Order: sequence, then structure tokens, then C-alpha cells
Amino acid sequence: MQLTKQALSQRTDHVYDVLVVGGGAAGLSAGIYLQRYLLSTLMIDKGKARSFWMQELHNYLGLPSDTPGREVLKQGKDHYLSLDGDYLHAYVEEVIDEGETFAVRVRVGRQNPTYEVFRSRYLIAASGIIDHLPQLSNMKNVFDYAGYNLHVCLICDGYEMRDQRAGVFGSNESSLDVAFSLGWFTPHITVFTNGAFEVGPELRDRLTQKGYTLNEQPIHQFLGENHQMSGVELADGSVVELDAGLISMGSKYHADYLNGIDLDYQGGNVVTDTMNRTSHPRIFAVGDLKVGMNQVIVAASDGALAATQIWRDIRRSEGTRRVPMVSNAA
Amino acid sequence: MQLTKQALSQRTDHVYDVLVVGGGAAGLSAGIYLQRYLLSTLMIDKGKARSFWMQELHNYLGLPSDTPGREVLKQGKDHYLSLDGDYLHAYVEEVIDEGETFAVRVRVGRQNPTYEVFRSRYLIAASGIIDHLPQLSNMKNVFDYAGYNLHVCLICDGYEMRDQRAGVFGSNESSLDVAFSLGWFTPHITVFTNGAFEVGPELRDRLTQKGYTLNEQPIHQFLGENHQMSGVELADGSVVELDAGLISMGSKYHADYLNGIDLDYQGGNVVTDTMNRTSHPRIFAVGDLKVGMNQVIVAASDGALAATQIWRDIRRSEGTRRVPMVSNAA
Repeated sequence: MQLTKQALSQRTDHVYDVLVVGGGAAGLSAGIYLQRYLLSTLMIDKGKARSFWMQELHNYLGLPSDTPGREVLKQGKDHYLSLDGDYLHAYVEEVIDEGETFAVRVRVGRQNPTYEVFRSRYLIAASGIIDHLPQLSNMKNVFDYAGYNLHVCLICDGYEMRDQRAGVFGSNESSLDVAFSLGWFTPHITVFTNGAFEVGPELRDRLTQKGYTLNEQPIHQFLGENHQMSGVELADGSVVELDAGLISMGSKYHADYLNGIDLDYQGGNVVTDTMNRTSHPRIFAVGDLKVGMNQVIVAASDGALAATQIWRDIRRSEGTRRVPMVSNAA
Repeated sequence: MQLTKQALSQRTDHVYDVLVVGGGAAGLSAGIYLQRYLLSTLMIDKGKARSFWMQELHNYLGLPSDTPGREVLKQGKDHYLSLDGDYLHAYVEEVIDEGETFAVRVRVGRQNPTYEVFRSRYLIAASGIIDHLPQLSNMKNVFDYAGYNLHVCLICDGYEMRDQRAGVFGSNESSLDVAFSLGWFTPHITVFTNGAFEVGPELRDRLTQKGYTLNEQPIHQFLGENHQMSGVELADGSVVELDAGLISMGSKYHADYLNGIDLDYQGGNVVTDTMNRTSHPRIFAVGDLKVGMNQVIVAASDGALAATQIWRDIRRSEGTRRVPMVSNAA
């Protein structure tokens, strides 16, 4: 059930089999599998997973190619709740390993927050990442287009940009490398630094060789209407017309709550085995947070694998049993 | 486009980037990604993937839990064709490695078949498996219930069998081990040998300890109506009432066409790396054919990973380019 602030105290005594941090594609898929394995699950979601911002999922098997990401999330949440999973809209602040269980400290509510501690035997870190966006004086202007034709994922949307006039928005030299992969789809590429960093002679030379334009001016704003970006207005008032954009500025990893636990990382991503177990035997990582490809269909598969491995662990350690709490579920 | 027998000769001169053997969940997802990477793809499907027989996919994120497997396949095929992928209803007989390309010999049509050879640079083996079913004198009786409440997958349908009177149908001693995992969901288990093999004292003892019933008589037929199996009628005319069944008789691997190629196997499954590349650098294996969990959502993810790795390979070997054949696709 969706837990309300009032109902929380009923659950803080309970040791869940699994606490899932994050209600995006990976977390929801894990939750669906876990509840179907009759394991008791608490999912804690802060809202607005990365896929929430995707206006069209073009490559998810089984769904029409104009399905908004938020529809998958809504369907998945309804599915999970229909299986009697517990769900709380809150923010996970800290995870403490108590040996047999984790104590998970959670902040509930933005204004006048309360703090609760939940316990679980396993933890699935499905909290994902969020893309850094160009910092303009008017951020609403950025939000108007991000996720529409101002993309953040070449794999997802390269096809949409084929033969288009595309802008690449980077945050440092190496982030501009994606321009050369984008060149697979279109030769009409302008690379923007937003005046924020220097471009050395080597990269400058590579861009020139490919016929890409380098624009080093600060950006005043994106132009367009109805969420369709049509170009960039620069600080000097000049305009670069574009059909699409690709933001490549890195990501924020939602993983601060794991700081007290010793896990293997590769860059900001958590290292896992094929079933998505981390270097901690009772912590799994799924979706964009782990090493791998950031795709919704991969995240959904990740969740299924992690849930199944946890079920195998618990089943083998306990022998045959069922969880009374969920056995009378619909 | 869907290739007709008449149009085949137009394609036999063409070297596809990728030939996908099998149009189930894994193959279709690969095809969608490949076409969106502007790679030319031919998918060859014999029809009736394993998921075609699943009446309800209960655990696929984004789809209602009563979605038939065949609907995912239909949606996926339409999606793939809308991206201009080539699709042929035929049977792959043999793959010959020519060094830079594969020559793939295909049988088209069941009556008066013709044979064609297609060429591709990469191959994705997505041909899957099909479950062995109990062999009764009237097989239509088996088909009436298989995929409804006569299940083949504990992970998929254990939840549906919770607290039910469930039959387990095995083909040898080790195949009956699944009964102990099914015990997680229900204690009311009868294990059937169909009179086809002996059960030794050790297993007999384990079954007794759990309170499971062992039935060693030949099965005459399944009972039920409207695809809902309600029990088993044995050779002596006696009846065992059941609410559900789980078939555990192993699978046929659709991989004969790979016999001429040296690949690593584990049991019948092809061994792959994390991007689903086999021990052959230009052959990928996805879905139920490879080592891993046999789930539709995992298969779909497998396809995405394989397609992406092939795109990376080709992009890196060729540098920036686009495929003219597909650049004017819708």
C-alpha cells in the first residue's frame, strides 16, 4: 500500500525482506518480482525518476514508440501496489549495516519533515542518476525543451537526430567526444562550450576535420515553442538555428545514502555481478546507478535479476516457507 | 519490410550488417535497436516464439499483468517493421563463417520449400528454446492447458500457484527438484512421473519429508474446460484434482544451425559476455538460448545490449558514416 505519513509507525517495527531505494524502472521492476516471490518489500521513492522526463520511449519492446516515460512509471507503480508492495514517497538519507539487517533513515516531507527508520534484510539501490543540464540564468527555459528535442541520451535519440542540425552541449573537453558518435547519425553538428571551458588545439583540430562547428560563446537562451527547441541565442544576440540538441554534461549520482558502506565503484557507478549483487552480499544495485548501459529496458531487466537472486538467497537460507504477511494478498 | 517469397532475390545480393535468427522478445528488441542505429537488419523467424504461448505476462514492467505474450510479439514486430527492418518468415538451416561475412542458408516455405542464402557481417542468435511437454496419446489435450494454468516457468507463475493444489510433471529425477522451490509458494504438491522413470529412495524420502505426494502412474489425460486444467486422469481411471500444474521436462534448444561453428556452451546454453557476445567475435546470443534467466524482460534487455555492442564495433571500425539504405526511412 502507499504509506501515508500517519501510517508510518505501523511499519517501523517490521523488518522487510527488501528495501528498494528508488521507484524508477529498475526499482519498480524489482518490486514487482519481489512481491511475486512473496517477499515483503518497501519501496522508497523521492519522485521524478530520470525516465519521468522522457517524453517518448522509442525503443522499449512492447510499447508504442511514443510512450511517455511517466506512463511506464505509473503502470509499474500501479502494478507493484496491486501486488501489495509498500510504497513511500520520501528521501533516503542514510543506510547503516547492522549485520543481519539494514537500518535505513528516511526523511518524509519537504516542509516540517519527519524522520523514520525502517529495517530490511536486503537493500536494492535503484536510485539512479540525473543529468546535469546547461546552467542558464533562466532555468525554466532549459526545462521547456529538455526531454523533448533537447536530448540527454545518444543511444535513445540518435535516430531522431538523423540528418538534423544538432547542437552538442558539453561541460568539459571530454564530454564533447559524444559529437563524434553523433556523427554516425548526422554531419550537421555544432558544439557549444557555453563559454565555460577551454578547447585545446587537438580537439579543435578533430572537430575541424569532421566539419563540425565549435561555438565558444555563452548561451543566453534556447529558442523555440511548444517544447520544440529551434536554436540557441548567444550572449551577443546572434542565433544558431538547430533542429535538435544533445546535452552531454555528466550526471549526478543519487547514492549519498550509501556513503557509510564500503562498495566497489567504477567512476560514479556501482560495480555488480551478473545478478546485480554489489561487493556487499546483501546490497544489489540496478539501473543507471550500476555499471552498464543506461536504458529503461535494461533497468527493468536489472530489477528482475536482483529480485530473483535475493529470492534464491532467502529461499536457500530458510528452506521452504511463505511469508504470512503477503499470503492473503489479492 | 516483410519479405515475400517473390521479393527474396532482391535481398540475396545485399550484405546485411546483422542477421537476427529468431523474432521472439530478444530478437525483436535487438532489431528495434539495430534499425535505430541505422544498421541494416534481416530478421528470420520461424514463428511461435516461446512467449507466443504465454497467455499472461505477469511481470513485464510497463504492461498490464494480463497481457498475452503474443501481443508483445505483435507490437514488437510492428515496431521493427516501422523502422524499415527486413523480416522473413522462414527457417535457418545453416550458418557458414566466411571470415568477413556469414552465409546463412534458409528454408522458405513448408510445402515445396525453396532455399536461399543471405549474407551478414554479424549474427544474433535469438532462436530460443521450447519446453518439452508431457507426451500423451492425445497431444491436443496437453496443448489445451499448457500456457494457461499448466505452467512451464516457476519464476513467472509461482505466484499464481500460491496455496493451490499443484502438480509437478517431470521427465527424470533431477527435473523434480523444482518441486522443492515450488514449495515456497504452496505446500499442496503432487509430483508425477507419468510412469516414465524410476524414483530412488533418497528423493522419495525428501518428498515424503516435505509432505509431497509422489504419483508414478501413467497419465491418461488432463481434465478441465476452457483451458483451465482441473486435474489428471490416470491410466487406471483414478483422478487427482489439481488447481495448477508446473511442467519441468527440459527444453529443446533451437541452435542446430550453429553446429558448424565453434562456440562455448554451458549445458545447452551459449556462453556470452556482459554485452551478449559469444566466444565468436561476430556472433551474439540473446534470450533463452544464452546462459541466464529465462524471462521476457531479460530477453528484451539482452537484445538491446547485443545491438548496441554491434553498433559500437561497426562504428569504431568504420568511423563516422550513415547507411544510405536506411537514411530515408520513415
